[in-house]
Amino acid sequence: MAGWQEALERQARTRAKAGLTRTLRPRAADDSVVDLAGNDYLGLAAHPEVIAAAAEALHRYGLGATGSRLVRGSTDAHTALETDLAGWLGAEQALVYSSGYLANLGAVRALAGPGTLLISDRYNHASLIDGCRSSGAEVVVAPHADPAALATILDAHPGRETVFVTESVFSVDGDLAPLAELHAVTSAHDTLLLVDDAHALGILGDSGAGGVAAAGLAGKPDVIVTATLSKSLGGAGGVVAGPAALIRHLIDTGRTFIYDTAPPPAVVAGVRAALRITRAADDRRAVLVARADQTVSRLTAAGFPVTAPAAGVLSVTAPGPEAALTWAEDCRDRGIAVGCFRPPSTPDGSSRLRLTLNAGIAAEDFDRALDVIVECAP
Amino acid sequence: MAGWQEALERQARTRAKAGLTRTLRPRAADDSVVDLAGNDYLGLAAHPEVIAAAAEALHRYGLGATGSRLVRGSTDAHTALETDLAGWLGAEQALVYSSGYLANLGAVRALAGPGTLLISDRYNHASLIDGCRSSGAEVVVAPHADPAALATILDAHPGRETVFVTESVFSVDGDLAPLAELHAVTSAHDTLLLVDDAHALGILGDSGAGGVAAAGLAGKPDVIVTATLSKSLGGAGGVVAGPAALIRHLIDTGRTFIYDTAPPPAVVAGVRAALRITRAADDRRAVLVARADQTVSRLTAAGFPVTAPAAGVLSVTAPGPEAALTWAEDCRDRGIAVGCFRPPSTPDGSSRLRLTLNAGIAAEDFDRALDVIVECAP
Ligand SMILES: Cc1ncc(COP(=O)(O)O)c(C=O)c1O
Ligand SMILES: Cc1ncc(COP(=O)(O)O)c(C=O)c1O
Repeated sequence: MAGWQEALERQARTRAKAGLTRTLRPRAADDSVVDLAGNDYLGLAAHPEVIAAAAEALHRYGLGATGSRLVRGSTDAHTALETDLAGWLGAEQALVYSSGYLANLGAVRALAGPGTLLISDRYNHASLIDGCRSSGAEVVVAPHADPAALATILDAHPGRETVFVTESVFSVDGDLAPLAELHAVTSAHDTLLLVDDAHALGILGDSGAGGVAAAGLAGKPDVIVTATLSKSLGGAGGVVAGPAALIRHLIDTGRTFIYDTAPPPAVVAGVRAALRITRAADDRRAVLVARADQTVSRLTAAGFPVTAPAAGVLSVTAPGPEAALTWAEDCRDRGIAVGCFRPPSTPDGSSRLRLTLNAGIAAEDFDRALDVIVECAP
Repeated sequence: MAGWQEALERQARTRAKAGLTRTLRPRAADDSVVDLAGNDYLGLAAHPEVIAAAAEALHRYGLGATGSRLVRGSTDAHTALETDLAGWLGAEQALVYSSGYLANLGAVRALAGPGTLLISDRYNHASLIDGCRSSGAEVVVAPHADPAALATILDAHPGRETVFVTESVFSVDGDLAPLAELHAVTSAHDTLLLVDDAHALGILGDSGAGGVAAAGLAGKPDVIVTATLSKSLGGAGGVVAGPAALIRHLIDTGRTFIYDTAPPPAVVAGVRAALRITRAADDRRAVLVARADQTVSRLTAAGFPVTAPAAGVLSVTAPGPEAALTWAEDCRDRGIAVGCFRPPSTPDGSSRLRLTLNAGIAAEDFDRALDVIVECAP
């Protein structure tokens, strides 16, 4: 075995000793596990109308988009989804990407000119961090969800072109950034606000238009929204929504847009059907709120500290990476999937279970899932 | 309008003056254009077996994978595709990504430890360049497809951990890197060879296993292969194939793998069906070879210098960006889609038409397409 492979294997052994080995556990299509781990918050990934729309586009367009968006990859299905997304999010325009990851890389880089100062919440998602790092711009990491700290940073850099980058609902802890307060600070400092609305889209705001809409910031010319289409919208892909000048810039110059194959028309059409259902899904959103309350009561009563979730993500601290893994595995053995987040996937280096709510689960299954989680606790 | 938007609009006007504005032209599902612009080389994107496999998985699994691969996103469909890809490519293991772009970012970064020297062919794809840049490693840009120059660079850095990164068939010019010669140099220098086989997969090598296989390098422990699943395989997604130690490393630590939603099961299942067809598609590969010859003869006879394509990509130089655009637009007005590549999408800053061959086009349509291209020339 070559030296580089030996080096990788040594690192793997070190990770194994620290309880940090990760295992892929493929699920079967008919797997009967109750899902408190995925991101299908509204239960739309398998909604009949979503599947029907995707199947129809699959038959009409074929599977792949056959090219990048600027060559052969743009179809009417892509345009229709972009129009609907812009309308829903209250943005001038929206641009669809093959993933939220590439959307974030593209959006952050587009906003970071030479000399720009990027300020990034310290709990931001890997894709935002990578976007900041790869932009080549100076990056300052800001204390988590802290408008006063943001103001201090901005005050220390007068006259600089500045962009503040944050999630709305954070992906591991499930807390909501104080977006209105953060925007008060950014707008007073002539700073752009980029919000990754991945975990609030479909859940917060009127018609589920997201955390930015809920904070009254939809359509503001100094606010840019990114999101994945893979969570509440039940599909795959990403979006950047904002002023037309930004979208033009991304089309003309954005590397992760120009040099990437367009998402499949079937996926795009399925997401569009999910968007239509989502706008009208106040019933599903009410189920999520009730389940959040139920989960907090049940876990608190059982002695586990859990924060009230802003949307569909709850985090329950575990004693350590191995305990978290055992807890999650015991739950799975009893038919309940929960997330197990260990370093480096947790912002603070701790280990925890991450529970995600899903309005599509039957009530009795959801009740049972909470019982199992409590019974399997270390 | 805010200052940053004005700045973006100023840049847009500068691009417009230079003829560098890009326009999305969505196509309809029933669009009758003859496609010499996309990457569906074998004509499999709309193959009935591909569509049937995707549709079946869509109904069985739902649309989205509902989570990242390590949480809820791994399904039996993903595992089956990975097994088939590894077997086809002759690699120990294969790992599927949501795009070739993210696969490249992940593979390059995984191989670049602190102190690694990355050597990158100067015509490499944006995703490879971004992978090099964002790795934080030192990067040397190597002359294009030049084993002697590579040896000189390696000789100048004795004792360094080194990785050479190249495409097999280059995406704009369509030429093939001399992979066997390059590997002779890398292996003599204890250097890893990373090959992006995007445009050779399905076309070169026994059973279409790609440019690496064609060069006799499949399964070599010092060769890593990446590719997109969106070209010959007619779908979407990406793959990294190589030694098991690398795949383990990517699963445990690769950011673009861990923090990205898994590709939809339907897409993955459709690609797997395309892979099965591709292995047996010597007939389709023969059509591609014949069409390459036909195109070169026709264009050469008409006075246009065009290189003999190594696979399915041909490049025809245009006098400038506006001429290239007019040429491509005139072709499109007459029902023929051709690629128009202008800076910054061309490696050398020139402008050209890029023609891509597709075995699925009817012979008379293909003949007519060549006529139109010649007739519309500037
Ligand atoms: C906050 C956040 N941003 C971005 C992403 C990336 O989106 P995608 O999975 O579509 O690449 C995710 C998760 O996947 C996320 O949780
Ligand atoms: C050589 C090469 N590498 C990587 C990619 C990126 O793959 P994907 O489109 O799946 O992101 C492409 C084109 O799209 C390509 O041409």
